[in-house]
Amino acid sequence: MAIPLAELCTLLEGKLHGGAGQSVQSIAPLDRAGPGDLSFLANPRYAANLAATRATAVLLQAAQVAQCPVACIEVDNPYLAYARASALFDDRPVPNRQVHTTATVADSAKLGENVTIGPHCVVEEGAVIGADTVLGPNSVVGAGTVIGLRCRLAAGVVLYHGITLGDEVEVHSGSVIGADGFGFAPAPSGWQKIYQLGSVRIGNRVSIGANSTIDRGAISDTVIADGVIIDNLVQIAHNVVIGENTALAGCVGIAGSATIGANCTIGGGVGIAGHLTVCDNVHLTGMTLVSKSITEAGTYSSGTALSTTARWRKNAVRFLQLDALHRRVSRLEKRLD
Amino acid sequence: MAIPLAELCTLLEGKLHGGAGQSVQSIAPLDRAGPGDLSFLANPRYAANLAATRATAVLLQAAQVAQCPVACIEVDNPYLAYARASALFDDRPVPNRQVHTTATVADSAKLGENVTIGPHCVVEEGAVIGADTVLGPNSVVGAGTVIGLRCRLAAGVVLYHGITLGDEVEVHSGSVIGADGFGFAPAPSGWQKIYQLGSVRIGNRVSIGANSTIDRGAISDTVIADGVIIDNLVQIAHNVVIGENTALAGCVGIAGSATIGANCTIGGGVGIAGHLTVCDNVHLTGMTLVSKSITEAGTYSSGTALSTTARWRKNAVRFLQLDALHRRVSRLEKRLD
Amino acid sequence: MAIPLAELCTLLEGKLHGGAGQSVQSIAPLDRAGPGDLSFLANPRYAANLAATRATAVLLQAAQVAQCPVACIEVDNPYLAYARASALFDDRPVPNRQVHTTATVADSAKLGENVTIGPHCVVEEGAVIGADTVLGPNSVVGAGTVIGLRCRLAAGVVLYHGITLGDEVEVHSGSVIGADGFGFAPAPSGWQKIYQLGSVRIGNRVSIGANSTIDRGAISDTVIADGVIIDNLVQIAHNVVIGENTALAGCVGIAGSATIGANCTIGGGVGIAGHLTVCDNVHLTGMTLVSKSITEAGTYSSGTALSTTARWRKNAVRFLQLDALHRRVSRLEKRLD
Repeated sequence: MAIPLAELCTLLEGKLHGGAGQSVQSIAPLDRAGPGDLSFLANPRYAANLAATRATAVLLQAAQVAQCPVACIEVDNPYLAYARASALFDDRPVPNRQVHTTATVADSAKLGENVTIGPHCVVEEGAVIGADTVLGPNSVVGAGTVIGLRCRLAAGVVLYHGITLGDEVEVHSGSVIGADGFGFAPAPSGWQKIYQLGSVRIGNRVSIGANSTIDRGAISDTVIADGVIIDNLVQIAHNVVIGENTALAGCVGIAGSATIGANCTIGGGVGIAGHLTVCDNVHLTGMTLVSKSITEAGTYSSGTALSTTARWRKNAVRFLQLDALHRRVSRLEKRLD
Repeated sequence: MAIPLAELCTLLEGKLHGGAGQSVQSIAPLDRAGPGDLSFLANPRYAANLAATRATAVLLQAAQVAQCPVACIEVDNPYLAYARASALFDDRPVPNRQVHTTATVADSAKLGENVTIGPHCVVEEGAVIGADTVLGPNSVVGAGTVIGLRCRLAAGVVLYHGITLGDEVEVHSGSVIGADGFGFAPAPSGWQKIYQLGSVRIGNRVSIGANSTIDRGAISDTVIADGVIIDNLVQIAHNVVIGENTALAGCVGIAGSATIGANCTIGGGVGIAGHLTVCDNVHLTGMTLVSKSITEAGTYSSGTALSTTARWRKNAVRFLQLDALHRRVSRLEKRLD
Repeated sequence: MAIPLAELCTLLEGKLHGGAGQSVQSIAPLDRAGPGDLSFLANPRYAANLAATRATAVLLQAAQVAQCPVACIEVDNPYLAYARASALFDDRPVPNRQVHTTATVADSAKLGENVTIGPHCVVEEGAVIGADTVLGPNSVVGAGTVIGLRCRLAAGVVLYHGITLGDEVEVHSGSVIGADGFGFAPAPSGWQKIYQLGSVRIGNRVSIGANSTIDRGAISDTVIADGVIIDNLVQIAHNVVIGENTALAGCVGIAGSATIGANCTIGGGVGIAGHLTVCDNVHLTGMTLVSKSITEAGTYSSGTALSTTARWRKNAVRFLQLDALHRRVSRLEKRLD
């Protein structure tokens, strides 16, 4: 699929320098690109790769036009331009807009126009699937669950009963939405299950990776706002609320009833304790533990830095004596005063 | 479904104050409840919400009866009473007690009375499924696996061959029980697989969340005792043994051959190293690393507290000099003595 | 299945002491073994168990032959010998080498000889499945994906389109290979999806546990070299490259574009940040955070040691004052000088 540079330029609202009549058919980084490739210079760190690139065309900012040895499209934000351009090279299999004969669809389910329902899918009673939505093979949509327009569920996704998904939601394989929250009351005989009577409400343009889990609420709902992006193996417990456009990287775990603001970025492996609040515009570095609320926007961390294990062992032992060390230093200061 | 307060009161072995002839049909927190809602006051922190509640009835302790503006049911433990009451409002789709025509059930499998086997399930040779047990759509029960009475497997659960589940076990979607433990011996040519010849034995009333994994033993079995509750995305390696009523929150990882006692609570994201023992009644806070055995009941932690990343960076660097700092302080003390 | 010791000895290239004509039919640890069991002494820690063992035969080194009260097979590496012997006791159900009638296999898919395709599997257009490969029930192989010879996918595995697996690859249930990498560019309107145009290439003899995720590359491929072993719930992001025979324990997360060398061992719960390099022969202890490249072989750690929560709280507060403490000590040193 060859895409003329002129067409690309119009789409990206950029300015074409050279390359009249040329086309591109794939994307590659500057240093590995060859004829037919579109490339981009988004990070100044890679500016040195520009001079030698063999790409057919490069997306870049005005300041780099002069240094570019090949055709280029001048844009304000080359990384965003690359993201937009990438859609043109989408090579995923095209959904066939059919309900596969092996799918099990309840009579009371409502299917919008042009839905694709893959082999061995199960759509239970009263479920609603919006127009142009795609269910990959072996996916399950529980009773009464409502899916919006143009959603894309990959193979093996499970939505429990009574869940709501907005429009243009993407869910990758193995993710489970609406399982019971981890609610149990201690009883003399062991743990008494608390039936999870709430649901999960997911907004528009939410993206959910593979093998992530979003539990239904105990009483009220778990809520994921519009534009939230969630990576793989992320755990979102019951009654969590996540604000618009917040991003959660892989292996994040958020405990029950935590409220996360909008426009946050949560690094990989971060853990957020239950019943606390993280305000808007908070950024958490990888594997940080949040055990109290964060009320001011900013970047936060916990943990220690990497070292050799030999050195770490010594310091880790000393960590256990840290409070005592502080008191020793205070005593020294008093003696010297 | 309206539930008369009098009936609820009998079930909970409580004492009804007011509300004669009234019913409730849902549960809500004190501050959001309205007519028809049952609420509860379990945490003294929320006592201030009692005076203004619009709930139809509240579960509470004797001491709060006088302050309650609406009908109430006096109980010893309102949180446990709420948990018990929640079962009455269970709105999950009712299993249809049928083997779906699209399920693949081996001739040699034994199905108890009233089992429900969902669409596209697979039940392999010699498997045994106890009466009243439910298999959600697309679940797989391996050859020779034995499931007890009244179990509930959600959609897309996988039980490998030769596994044993007790009665009233709940397994949420995407969980995998009985995959091979991570056993490999280093060999000149790379890693030599150790065939995992043990199994997994799961007791009664165990609850397992979504997308968790419990591996089969290498030689002997991995064992989960009665009443254990396990959240989502939890990893339990081969030959782990977990004692009765222990609770594991989301994203916990337990390495091979660790033995965890009874009545422990393991916080989210905790990691427990292999071949060690954690005694009964141990509580671990979120993201703690347990790298040695714990022989005394109590609450344990590791890690550092949250701070801004700027401040964290400075302290993290200093952590790497902590042993040196201790020695400097010791020298100072000697000089002053 | 009784295996004569003589046959076992030949297979393991060992030297049999006693036990002529005897057979074993299962494996057990020294202290629990009984008649008919094969046992092994690999760890000197368990040497004390040898004298009292009731095993029929023991795998051990030359130095222990004299102490062994029963028959033994002398080998150089008893642990490796045990691993090799374990294959003889493999009791997994034998694949039936048939395409199940309920499987959905595209006409254009190419199936090698003796492949087993389980119930409700889906094999999409143009997929290629090598001879003797087994797909467990409900597995999905995307369009154009190529699987080598003698691979073994368990139930519920999902391979997206265009993925490549080498020969003798093992994938346990619920693992997802080839989902979109977590690629989004910030845009004024929220996150702009970056279409993930790369793939995943997995070498020969790779083993992947349950519910792990390996994302496809953004532009170029995610690459897992020959002999890599991956445990459960491991997240491997887009464009990660992992070198030969590296082992990743459970719950590891590797962020995008990280390059991991060969022969590394990555402990459980380790997190590796994106765009960095870990050289060959690096060993990371459990839950270590790697936030910068590692250029020298060795063992590395981060985090703090376990203590009671009461003690931990005091020290964790002091960690936040660590930089200030260093400065206080420096001042004290100056005052004393």
